[in-house]
Amino acid sequence: MNRLMKPGIRERETLLNSGLLAALGVESVAAMMEIAVIGNLPARQILFREGEPADLLHCVLSGYVRVYKLDPDGREADVELYGPGDLIGASVVLDGGRYTATAQAAEPALIARFDLKRVRDIANRRPDLAVALTHALSAQLAKAFASLANDRLHTAPQRVARFLLAHCIVEGKPASFRLPYQKSLLAGKLGLAPEALSRAFSMLRGYGVNVRGRLVHINDPEALRRV
Amino acid sequence: MNRLMKPGIRERETLLNSGLLAALGVESVAAMMEIAVIGNLPARQILFREGEPADLLHCVLSGYVRVYKLDPDGREADVELYGPGDLIGASVVLDGGRYTATAQAAEPALIARFDLKRVRDIANRRPDLAVALTHALSAQLAKAFASLANDRLHTAPQRVARFLLAHCIVEGKPASFRLPYQKSLLAGKLGLAPEALSRAFSMLRGYGVNVRGRLVHINDPEALRRV
Repeated sequence: MNRLMKPGIRERETLLNSGLLAALGVESVAAMMEIAVIGNLPARQILFREGEPADLLHCVLSGYVRVYKLDPDGREADVELYGPGDLIGASVVLDGGRYTATAQAAEPALIARFDLKRVRDIANRRPDLAVALTHALSAQLAKAFASLANDRLHTAPQRVARFLLAHCIVEGKPASFRLPYQKSLLAGKLGLAPEALSRAFSMLRGYGVNVRGRLVHINDPEALRRV
Repeated sequence: MNRLMKPGIRERETLLNSGLLAALGVESVAAMMEIAVIGNLPARQILFREGEPADLLHCVLSGYVRVYKLDPDGREADVELYGPGDLIGASVVLDGGRYTATAQAAEPALIARFDLKRVRDIANRRPDLAVALTHALSAQLAKAFASLANDRLHTAPQRVARFLLAHCIVEGKPASFRLPYQKSLLAGKLGLAPEALSRAFSMLRGYGVNVRGRLVHINDPEALRRV
């Protein structure tokens, strides 16, 4: 990680509002702030690799971090995409074990990291930290189950339609929005090859979806719901 | 659940060796034993449904419990299969929320259940319980990521081959073993329709795999590795 630093005022505020720290009592917040280190990551930098001894817990302050697993022949399967405020669940290894997936900055990102041994020490003294980690992980397990079910139940165009509907705020009315990240990341998140995502977007044109770069216009959300 | 009871000597021993309780200090074990209730479930009985307020934490003592998500049109996607000793991760809802998936006994099963409010009270006093829940959930998140990657990277015959190799104990030598559960459960676990599992088994005959009922014989594990 480049330019490691203690959190400044702005980073402290972002950290305080992050999923993990927002759930803690003041004393545990202070203990976690004390050991927090902030770092800027350039796009594509690896945070940790599957199989390495786990030594750091990570939270995303800005940007996106993709977590993936590798096949022996080098193919990658994205399994989670973490954004601003997210605890990287794959880095919660309190038992002294190894990382079970690889994490990479998907774009320039600001990350808070915490020494796992010290996190474990704090968690062993302070139930609120351990309970907050349990909450975060159980929410992430639910998300992983939802991804697995989405893959197993839905075709590529259906997965894309569901993603668009979940991000289109105005119920039932035409809407425009900007994809929160590049299409290649969206493809990975939905378990699709980039070509399969392009084909799905082409197919969705027939349902009133227009895409220009990262800008998406949905003419008829109701039609999209019937894909 | 039928025939609710306090745990007897045999159930206490099974519970003590289960993933969750084995990790606890004596006082937390006593606190959890105090609130444990044991029940026999007939096959196909529902333990909890997606969307219901979560009130009970569940551990499997014997048998298998499948956890699945439902589509609005009623199709089911299995997302996890829990066996003897497993904490049902989908029932770890400490924040007073709702279950995010449905759990059903896949065959007659013996279950220990714990009132979630009381589990939360104990976890708020005893960090070892909260830390043990964190361990269990982080292992289950890793398993869910592995399933997701397996679905995304491998064809049906490859998924079956990998499952067989993981359960074939003698490295490199011909081996026979009995599937731990029915084929319909294996299909769900691997994200396959029952017909797709049958086709995969037929295809694997060419790689020296013979299946009779739940009995599997692997003639050449090395060939299977190349599927």
